[in-house]
Amino acid sequence: MKMDGVNEQARLSPQDQLSAWLSADMAAVNALIRERMNSEHAPRIPEVTAHLIEAGGKRIRPMLVLAAAHICGYPSRAPQGQDHIKLAATVEFIHTATLLHDDVVDESAQRRGRPTANLLWDNKSSVLVGDYLFARAFQLMVEPGNLQALNILANASATIAEGEVLQLTAAQDITTSEETYLKVVRGKTAALFSAATESGALIAGASPEQIRALYTYGDALGIAFQIADDLLDYGGTSAAIGKNTGDDFRERKLTLPLIKAISQADEAERAFWIRVIEKGQQQEGDLEEALRIMQAHGALDAARSDALAWSDRAREALSLLPDHPLKATLSALAEYVVSRLN
Amino acid sequence: MKMDGVNEQARLSPQDQLSAWLSADMAAVNALIRERMNSEHAPRIPEVTAHLIEAGGKRIRPMLVLAAAHICGYPSRAPQGQDHIKLAATVEFIHTATLLHDDVVDESAQRRGRPTANLLWDNKSSVLVGDYLFARAFQLMVEPGNLQALNILANASATIAEGEVLQLTAAQDITTSEETYLKVVRGKTAALFSAATESGALIAGASPEQIRALYTYGDALGIAFQIADDLLDYGGTSAAIGKNTGDDFRERKLTLPLIKAISQADEAERAFWIRVIEKGQQQEGDLEEALRIMQAHGALDAARSDALAWSDRAREALSLLPDHPLKATLSALAEYVVSRLN
Repeated sequence: MKMDGVNEQARLSPQDQLSAWLSADMAAVNALIRERMNSEHAPRIPEVTAHLIEAGGKRIRPMLVLAAAHICGYPSRAPQGQDHIKLAATVEFIHTATLLHDDVVDESAQRRGRPTANLLWDNKSSVLVGDYLFARAFQLMVEPGNLQALNILANASATIAEGEVLQLTAAQDITTSEETYLKVVRGKTAALFSAATESGALIAGASPEQIRALYTYGDALGIAFQIADDLLDYGGTSAAIGKNTGDDFRERKLTLPLIKAISQADEAERAFWIRVIEKGQQQEGDLEEALRIMQAHGALDAARSDALAWSDRAREALSLLPDHPLKATLSALAEYVVSRLN
Repeated sequence: MKMDGVNEQARLSPQDQLSAWLSADMAAVNALIRERMNSEHAPRIPEVTAHLIEAGGKRIRPMLVLAAAHICGYPSRAPQGQDHIKLAATVEFIHTATLLHDDVVDESAQRRGRPTANLLWDNKSSVLVGDYLFARAFQLMVEPGNLQALNILANASATIAEGEVLQLTAAQDITTSEETYLKVVRGKTAALFSAATESGALIAGASPEQIRALYTYGDALGIAFQIADDLLDYGGTSAAIGKNTGDDFRERKLTLPLIKAISQADEAERAFWIRVIEKGQQQEGDLEEALRIMQAHGALDAARSDALAWSDRAREALSLLPDHPLKATLSALAEYVVSRLN
């Protein structure tokens, strides 16, 4: 795999490598976001949006659009083309809209180290500004006039919303299957990752195989990332309790390690899960007991294996793509999202 | 104006005339709505949606799409075309999504004579199912593959969301202008009415003048309807207190009669408006006093004149359209929405 243009940045994280390589494009994306989040009539809209957008998210989704487009040769084929910039801003708007609504649904108080919009203003503003950003995303993505890209983003929007509802109804339900978990994860993370990479390839005029490969990359990357995140909430595979351990347990979320442990529960363990997850009657020492049961069944190791397999799948998909310096960066990114598990 | 096909239904309201004329199309629209509101994975979605959609709204928005398409000759030009059905279902989905979010924002307990979804389930479900319906609308409207129609509906979605935020921030602000009121009304009602009629004409292949005329009709119809509604909340021009009088006053909403009265307030009246609307310190007899002040300045009559003028504008726009039995029905509809003021 060629590494030119990436070697000199070897000490940078893959996200920072992407940022560096895509800096000119990202400046255009950020300018477009600032322009389009404005509202002539309702100043509350840019206030709420800026609070969230300028808190400095990692902008991973717009960078995935841009990277996919570049790898598939977008700027050289259409030197004046701005479609990748528009699609990149679109996915960031969709993402921001879902964050605003998520914080209302989860009654969150903090996001990106700052108080949430629902706390600073109110739930009403978060709901309505989220709707506005979704509509703005929709306006933006109509502009390139590519019906296939519109279809990809429309389908991703439906998958996201469906996954959120599914997560809501699956919460505290100990019969939740790994299949349902995967649907929730696709809604939560993977659907917008894969829509970003797929639509980026599409507007670059890539072949159907390349478009499919970039879809697979984004989907697998998102799933690997989310499983790793859920596993880290139980302290990774060390089962040692750190300061960020146990949030999902306390909120009774059915994530992969828990689902795997429940599927192998004996009668006594089953009674334990019903008490702490279904009924929510948690007491001192329950998290430790949950971790002990998970370790006993190898649930944490099994979840780790799954995350690594999805990471491998993401990297393998890249082999179908043309040579490009950003290929190594995307590969490193897929490795990076699960590196926290080692 | 020709009345054939409508005369025999003369005793029906214009909505019922539309329902009768469009019954075959509306059966297809309702079937499509039922099909698309389903979710394989999240049964909560059709539950919440059915609760609202099957409560029997008047379906005025989808009927406006269909009527505009028919008047502009859609079915005869494209006998197998289903685009008008898809667009009609789209606008009903957008409308339903906004109702779900509105009831969260307004903390409403009743809608269409039934408990609201946010009360029966929870705010979370209303937010997320609303998002899902908006995404489904988006998928549906991509299907006809008409970029201009997509643009119209994307713009309407942004106007709706912007109007809602504007209404939120303008509430209790006695400096709200008639211009701001009009923007709120467009967001609340007229933007989706005009998007319905404009997109219906567009997919029928109408001329730019006809498309523009149907845009104007929908816009003016929506504004006339909303002004009439806001006026009736103060008992129409009779200024008699009925059982439905005064809700907007109690919620301190800046609607047209109030804005007109405030713009002419002397010092004492101004102090009154600051106390009851801005500070919300309302007491027994305040509504009567508000009505007396409005009468004294002719604010109710002036609002009524505005509503009638918008109704006239809607009917005049129809003169640019080809002869069609539904023209008389649309004209009667524009008269009907303000007839409650006589």
